[in-house]
Amino acid sequence: MRTVLITGFEPFDGETVNPSWEVVSRLDNVIIAGCRVVARQLPCVFGDALVALNAAIDSLSPTLVLSVGQAGGRTDISVERVAINVDDARIADNRGNQPVDTPIVANGPAAWFSSLPIKAIVSALRDAGIPASVSQTAGTFVCNHVMYGLLHKLSGIPDVKGGFIHIPYLPQQAAAHPGAPSMAAETVRQGLELAISTALMVDNDIQITGGATH
Amino acid sequence: MRTVLITGFEPFDGETVNPSWEVVSRLDNVIIAGCRVVARQLPCVFGDALVALNAAIDSLSPTLVLSVGQAGGRTDISVERVAINVDDARIADNRGNQPVDTPIVANGPAAWFSSLPIKAIVSALRDAGIPASVSQTAGTFVCNHVMYGLLHKLSGIPDVKGGFIHIPYLPQQAAAHPGAPSMAAETVRQGLELAISTALMVDNDIQITGGATH
Amino acid sequence: MRTVLITGFEPFDGETVNPSWEVVSRLDNVIIAGCRVVARQLPCVFGDALVALNAAIDSLSPTLVLSVGQAGGRTDISVERVAINVDDARIADNRGNQPVDTPIVANGPAAWFSSLPIKAIVSALRDAGIPASVSQTAGTFVCNHVMYGLLHKLSGIPDVKGGFIHIPYLPQQAAAHPGAPSMAAETVRQGLELAISTALMVDNDIQITGGATH
Amino acid sequence: MRTVLITGFEPFDGETVNPSWEVVSRLDNVIIAGCRVVARQLPCVFGDALVALNAAIDSLSPTLVLSVGQAGGRTDISVERVAINVDDARIADNRGNQPVDTPIVANGPAAWFSSLPIKAIVSALRDAGIPASVSQTAGTFVCNHVMYGLLHKLSGIPDVKGGFIHIPYLPQQAAAHPGAPSMAAETVRQGLELAISTALMVDNDIQITGGATH
Repeated sequence: MRTVLITGFEPFDGETVNPSWEVVSRLDNVIIAGCRVVARQLPCVFGDALVALNAAIDSLSPTLVLSVGQAGGRTDISVERVAINVDDARIADNRGNQPVDTPIVANGPAAWFSSLPIKAIVSALRDAGIPASVSQTAGTFVCNHVMYGLLHKLSGIPDVKGGFIHIPYLPQQAAAHPGAPSMAAETVRQGLELAISTALMVDNDIQITGGATH
Repeated sequence: MRTVLITGFEPFDGETVNPSWEVVSRLDNVIIAGCRVVARQLPCVFGDALVALNAAIDSLSPTLVLSVGQAGGRTDISVERVAINVDDARIADNRGNQPVDTPIVANGPAAWFSSLPIKAIVSALRDAGIPASVSQTAGTFVCNHVMYGLLHKLSGIPDVKGGFIHIPYLPQQAAAHPGAPSMAAETVRQGLELAISTALMVDNDIQITGGATH
Repeated sequence: MRTVLITGFEPFDGETVNPSWEVVSRLDNVIIAGCRVVARQLPCVFGDALVALNAAIDSLSPTLVLSVGQAGGRTDISVERVAINVDDARIADNRGNQPVDTPIVANGPAAWFSSLPIKAIVSALRDAGIPASVSQTAGTFVCNHVMYGLLHKLSGIPDVKGGFIHIPYLPQQAAAHPGAPSMAAETVRQGLELAISTALMVDNDIQITGGATH
Repeated sequence: MRTVLITGFEPFDGETVNPSWEVVSRLDNVIIAGCRVVARQLPCVFGDALVALNAAIDSLSPTLVLSVGQAGGRTDISVERVAINVDDARIADNRGNQPVDTPIVANGPAAWFSSLPIKAIVSALRDAGIPASVSQTAGTFVCNHVMYGLLHKLSGIPDVKGGFIHIPYLPQQAAAHPGAPSMAAETVRQGLELAISTALMVDNDIQITGGATH
């Protein structure tokens, strides 16, 4: 049976939970579209996160890799289009690192595009009544770092697709950040299952706009 | 057994559902803190909504009345502090009425404050991990119209408390409004049950800030 | 010659300037529509602000009173519709007072509506290319306190109109609050002059919507 | 005397003005830091915009190229960090083109980073009291198209720097989009002059964060 690797992060920025791990951990050992899902937690640490991710890829030989991270303040499940080759940390990571304008991979390409069918995923989620959109930036913190590193590694492994999805705060987090939007864990779980099944079944992405004027 | 009247609205503004009725209808006949909850739907129509609300109050003699409405674009369960004596409709209601700057009750007071313990409700919801806040305005459409009319009527009925709560879009609605925040029906249901039990049990509101600088 | 009293506030909340006073002070002694404008600064202090405002009204006998305050985070010139009879301070004022849910005027009406032609003012500003809107809440801090106190006092003085306008941060303030919107002092000044001339010349407000659905 | 080429766009998306050209045109023939500024307008058309830009670069041999575009809804002067090799048009351009997920340069790199000192520019603007920030995405419309094409062309011309800056609506535009933030033309003009002088004088960008967590 083929394997899907899905990752979430440990808590950061003063939170006691990370919605990505809260939801991703529930998907461990679930079967989706004939594939076994394996969930792994990544540290919210530049460098270490990629060491853990690469080790998981090497040991599991997955057919699909989906990394998931918290985007506090966003309203929906946002499917990232692109990762850029720069770390620029507004806050320190969980080991105190705060790189500014350093490349993730020296002499690596400036960016990697997601190899997931991002438009098909957004379309499938919206059809299922789950708020979703294409995002044109994954930021410049550990999430972008992991997405870039993932796609850089997968560029050397034929036929393995990968990408990144940002999710909102959980309601319990937003309760402590008045005004912040949130999404229930159950809604996110349904969205991630649908994203995985869509990624497994759609080889050529659909041609619908997911662009931004700026 | 005492009765709690809770109301939701029919859909408006082109929506096919109204989250207030989707959730409120689930509370019909539920027992909370020893009281039976009765759920009623109100038309999204100036005047008619109050006719229906007043008839329900007269026939049920509730001990508590909570009206609930949709606030598309808001992120949390917002407990309204005050209703003002004016109708000013940015869009037409469901019968095509679009009043501008007309009083709800001729010669009525300029405003009525909620008689619910709004701070205790917000505090209870946040403690339970449900995003909530005090709102300083219920707008000038049918929601404010109903809140004002409700409190005006209750001002003549001793010992009956009432107020209004705005809730976000459901996820299925936000899926069609890219970027809009949402809240799962189950989260809202828990929030409304907690609001009702808090309103039944707290006679004197707690003294914590719920204010806005502007 | 008739007098128009316009007030701005001293800085608060850690700012070194208050845009309301920066602009209002430039209008001192200006002649608008045949009236002399007198600018006065109010302390950002519950109670004291109204003492200063009332003294100015008593000594100047103005025909129109316009109070202006900072609304950091708002995007446009917002003309307030209503002030409510409650102080609820999210932050302390400049003397450390932080009242919670206390009435501004004991046994006063729940609210006072602006006696300015708020729709005509918004319309005039937009026609002149100045961003403006009707606001349904002035908050619950010193701005609302002053607006309520002003209208309460004017209710006892025939033929004197009054109201409140909130303005955004100045660009220099927003430069220190990344992401915050701002408005140039010159744009605000033009807006306030136009608000004053409109208030002096329009006796019956125009009937256009300025409402909010929530 | 060395030349600085600065470009703005013609109006699009139903607007009658484009703030970029309104301000950029005022800089034509201005001398900044010993360089003559030449202002050119670009059509808001995929492909044609780059034809016009490339012709201007070829004829003027500028030492610096700064392209400027409208970002309706943004609050400040945002200095773009990166352009990505994709056109994905949410709306049609001025000739009706609406490409979806097509590369700007076939087989071009996935992205180009700005060669301007973006952190030094943001820092200089803030120090001067002008709201500014680093932006991690220029979108996927004609602005990103021009930024990518510009940097792709400059990659073959030694010692010429280039980049892109997005600016808010003008107040006169925001007056027709209630709630939209804006910036006065004069504030933008000062910001662009400062951006040019900083770009001319700073060879190695400063090391301060301008990152985003997501």
